[in-house]
Amino acid sequence: MKRPLILVTNDDGISASGIRNLIRIMNDFGNVVVVAPDGPQSAMGHAITIDSVLRCDEIIVNKGSQKEYSCSGTPVDCVKLAINQLLETKPDLCVSGINHGSNSSINVIYSGTMSAAVEGALEGIPSIGFSLLDYSHDADFSEAELYIRKVTQTVLEHGMDKGVCLNVNIPKVIENKKIQGIKICRQARANWEEQFEKRVDPKGRAYYWLTGKFVNYDEGKDTDEWALANHYVSIVPVHFDITAYPSISSLAKIF
Amino acid sequence: MKRPLILVTNDDGISASGIRNLIRIMNDFGNVVVVAPDGPQSAMGHAITIDSVLRCDEIIVNKGSQKEYSCSGTPVDCVKLAINQLLETKPDLCVSGINHGSNSSINVIYSGTMSAAVEGALEGIPSIGFSLLDYSHDADFSEAELYIRKVTQTVLEHGMDKGVCLNVNIPKVIENKKIQGIKICRQARANWEEQFEKRVDPKGRAYYWLTGKFVNYDEGKDTDEWALANHYVSIVPVHFDITAYPSISSLAKIF
Repeated sequence: MKRPLILVTNDDGISASGIRNLIRIMNDFGNVVVVAPDGPQSAMGHAITIDSVLRCDEIIVNKGSQKEYSCSGTPVDCVKLAINQLLETKPDLCVSGINHGSNSSINVIYSGTMSAAVEGALEGIPSIGFSLLDYSHDADFSEAELYIRKVTQTVLEHGMDKGVCLNVNIPKVIENKKIQGIKICRQARANWEEQFEKRVDPKGRAYYWLTGKFVNYDEGKDTDEWALANHYVSIVPVHFDITAYPSISSLAKIF
Repeated sequence: MKRPLILVTNDDGISASGIRNLIRIMNDFGNVVVVAPDGPQSAMGHAITIDSVLRCDEIIVNKGSQKEYSCSGTPVDCVKLAINQLLETKPDLCVSGINHGSNSSINVIYSGTMSAAVEGALEGIPSIGFSLLDYSHDADFSEAELYIRKVTQTVLEHGMDKGVCLNVNIPKVIENKKIQGIKICRQARANWEEQFEKRVDPKGRAYYWLTGKFVNYDEGKDTDEWALANHYVSIVPVHFDITAYPSISSLAKIF
């Protein structure tokens, strides 16, 4: 059987330990091409570069069978550039991550990691975003790896519904507590309660830092937040049709 | 009756003619506060600024009853900063635009204009993104204005379903052809077929420009693309839950 062609990207940048681990794992599944941002691009959502140019150079970050490109753009730019310029054939799989931090519930719409996976789905490629609920640079990916292998194997075998990608979040390693398994979930209704910290620069001019508290309003046991709080891996199928279908008929009455 | 508090933003920047027209129109409906990017932020999607600081200064661009702030961040940053820092009470309405160019079908997920409206909806505020299918700086907003007034009036009277905002696209003015009315639609299944133009800089290093062709695969007459092609204003209700619900049960079988 032909080895699958696997495109790997992320939003933490090509040298982040999350993507280095993901590349190592993916090398066991297929022929890997990495096209990833040259630096951090977290919280870039579905941003693309339209008013300036993109740089993209082949580099070697560390040894392995993968081929790697470092790109000046956003995660979505990386996917577009890979598919439309760098690769000769369409990838069989697109994986993004392993993100350092959660992309559960509402975080999915801000996430560069997940936007790359959504872009993969838009191109008709089975795509998965992986995130570990551990922000630290030296996060322990060992337990996550088992689930990343399982999800990857399953997607390679079964494919994916058209236009759908997977948002996979993995609990942080806790001593004496094993991950309980996988839950297929919906996106929880949660939000950030933001506060801005106002400061004054040495020249006397104001500036702001975004800070915030994550608040989950959703008590459903079918949500990603519930799964993660109960130490399961959460998988939410995600799509790019953001039409609010139930509102179509009510709007048709008032317009 | 109390005049509504209206937050105005966009992604083309605070001095773009689209937002200047929108501010002028909104001054007739309520007390207007503008918090908009200090320069172009098109195609920024739902990007937010988390690793650097935001600047936000009160300015006067031109005369009017509005209060205005120019912000260094993305459209979503502007909405967050307005609601959580600058405004004392929650706005009754959030409007974004008038965007210079279409945000129909798949463009909605790349659009800074629409991400600002989605962020408004996330905050529980009735929110509308307005776009005119005319990229030119001196676009004719006269016919668009009638529909912007109608949609604004209707939303102020009827409110909006929770978590939903409106993606309003308005056809370009064509001589001897009047807009046919409003259609409530779903997001068409369309996509960009991208090509990158590779060039070489004066130092001999490669760089890329994103170019692309918009392709509509969707023949449905209930889509925004159909409405716009037939010279109607399209209104698509949009939400931020991007769970692909139909895929939950099929995934549960294979995992």
